[in-house]
Amino acid sequence: MNFADKLSRITGKNNSLLCIGLDPDIGKISENLSIFEFNKSIIDSTSDLVCAYKPNIAFYEAYGIDGLIQLKSTIDYLKKEHPQIPIVLDAKRADIPNTAKMYAKAFFEYWQADAVTVYPNLGLDSIKPFLEYEDKLTILLIKTSNADSGMFQNIQTKNGPYYLDLAKTISRWHYDNLGIFVGATYPQELRVVREIFPDKIFLSAGFGAQEGEVGHAVKAGIDKNSAGIMFNASRSIIYSQGPKSAAQKLRDEINKYRK
Amino acid sequence: MNFADKLSRITGKNNSLLCIGLDPDIGKISENLSIFEFNKSIIDSTSDLVCAYKPNIAFYEAYGIDGLIQLKSTIDYLKKEHPQIPIVLDAKRADIPNTAKMYAKAFFEYWQADAVTVYPNLGLDSIKPFLEYEDKLTILLIKTSNADSGMFQNIQTKNGPYYLDLAKTISRWHYDNLGIFVGATYPQELRVVREIFPDKIFLSAGFGAQEGEVGHAVKAGIDKNSAGIMFNASRSIIYSQGPKSAAQKLRDEINKYRK
Repeated sequence: MNFADKLSRITGKNNSLLCIGLDPDIGKISENLSIFEFNKSIIDSTSDLVCAYKPNIAFYEAYGIDGLIQLKSTIDYLKKEHPQIPIVLDAKRADIPNTAKMYAKAFFEYWQADAVTVYPNLGLDSIKPFLEYEDKLTILLIKTSNADSGMFQNIQTKNGPYYLDLAKTISRWHYDNLGIFVGATYPQELRVVREIFPDKIFLSAGFGAQEGEVGHAVKAGIDKNSAGIMFNASRSIIYSQGPKSAAQKLRDEINKYRK
Repeated sequence: MNFADKLSRITGKNNSLLCIGLDPDIGKISENLSIFEFNKSIIDSTSDLVCAYKPNIAFYEAYGIDGLIQLKSTIDYLKKEHPQIPIVLDAKRADIPNTAKMYAKAFFEYWQADAVTVYPNLGLDSIKPFLEYEDKLTILLIKTSNADSGMFQNIQTKNGPYYLDLAKTISRWHYDNLGIFVGATYPQELRVVREIFPDKIFLSAGFGAQEGEVGHAVKAGIDKNSAGIMFNASRSIIYSQGPKSAAQKLRDEINKYRK
């Protein structure tokens, strides 16, 4: 099953556009739990509330090989217990074609991710090795959610800000399995980029810890079917007192604006 | 010892600006060798000819945790046998500040790299977590070596092509431990960026497999002391019939143009 179908099914079944970021920071989790056990507790209490899980691989790489073993256990658990929930591996890679091929192999074959995040800045030849995995989604990072993202992403070109110029070029490529990322902290930019890609699957992030406003971002990001986007929240859910109720609350708040 | 001093010493001792990329592709190496053993054979035959080794982590990630164990063995071997040779970990990461901190921890603490490659496109807040490691070099990727790199990196802004606009902004930051990458396949761009950063350490790549012309790139990339740059070659050396003689030949060819 390709990514779009998988996402569409779980979005319907769980009535959710909420993606939960599995970004474990050892300093913030109980000493009695391994990273895998921490993730498992989040998954067990939220699997009927999400449309995807998104581990950011940096939070595992920080603990080296031991950390990556915890990611492996987490992915194995998701594949076994919740095969219908897509796994978006937030890796934010980009390299020349010969090397991009190795990254694509890592994320789609070894880690068995359903989707991966990639920077488009090296041009099409560097993205093709990812796009060759037809059932997988390659999500191109157009505009990031951080405070300084405008410093270089909003430099003015002849065709408007850089991120938009880049988006316009990408919109002329013909790949069904290409997704788009815009930070939820920039709802105006999200709206403009959604207009350029009316039919693509989007990923957005920045609710909660980064204080993106939910209503504006949801209205800007949904497609004509009030879906087609995954809104990621991480810290605000996984470190809350009750991850289940925090997830339910955010899922429902997102749904309020889909109408 | 900080990176600049470490590089300066080994550049002098080995009379070399040659960096060898340890990018093992299992399909291309003898079945009798592990990745570590392959790397060790390259290191053993070239350690008196290089100014740095540069493993591109994609080539290890492609083989998952087993691949990363081979990288660990390689780094442990280098740290023990050749502590004077800097290790540049080519990771090409970039993420929002909270996540960038985890990547910096991964590369500088866990992997013990002396330098790491990072995209500047997310802005200064995303780079600061790397720069906080004062003795390490954070190499910002300004212009990549691949054929399609101009597609987005050369988009015209009010201040010239995007990569140059970005370089000019970065040149106004004041960090001693910031390095610069420009592909050797674009010697004209390398020259212009070197003029903007006369005193920074550069990394360049694209000789050999990517057919960058050695003479032009060397003359464009060296600093006023005919040094201050690492020229990486990978495939053209590690898969040659004789890595030692290939390395010696390229080191000497580079040196010819330093005069």
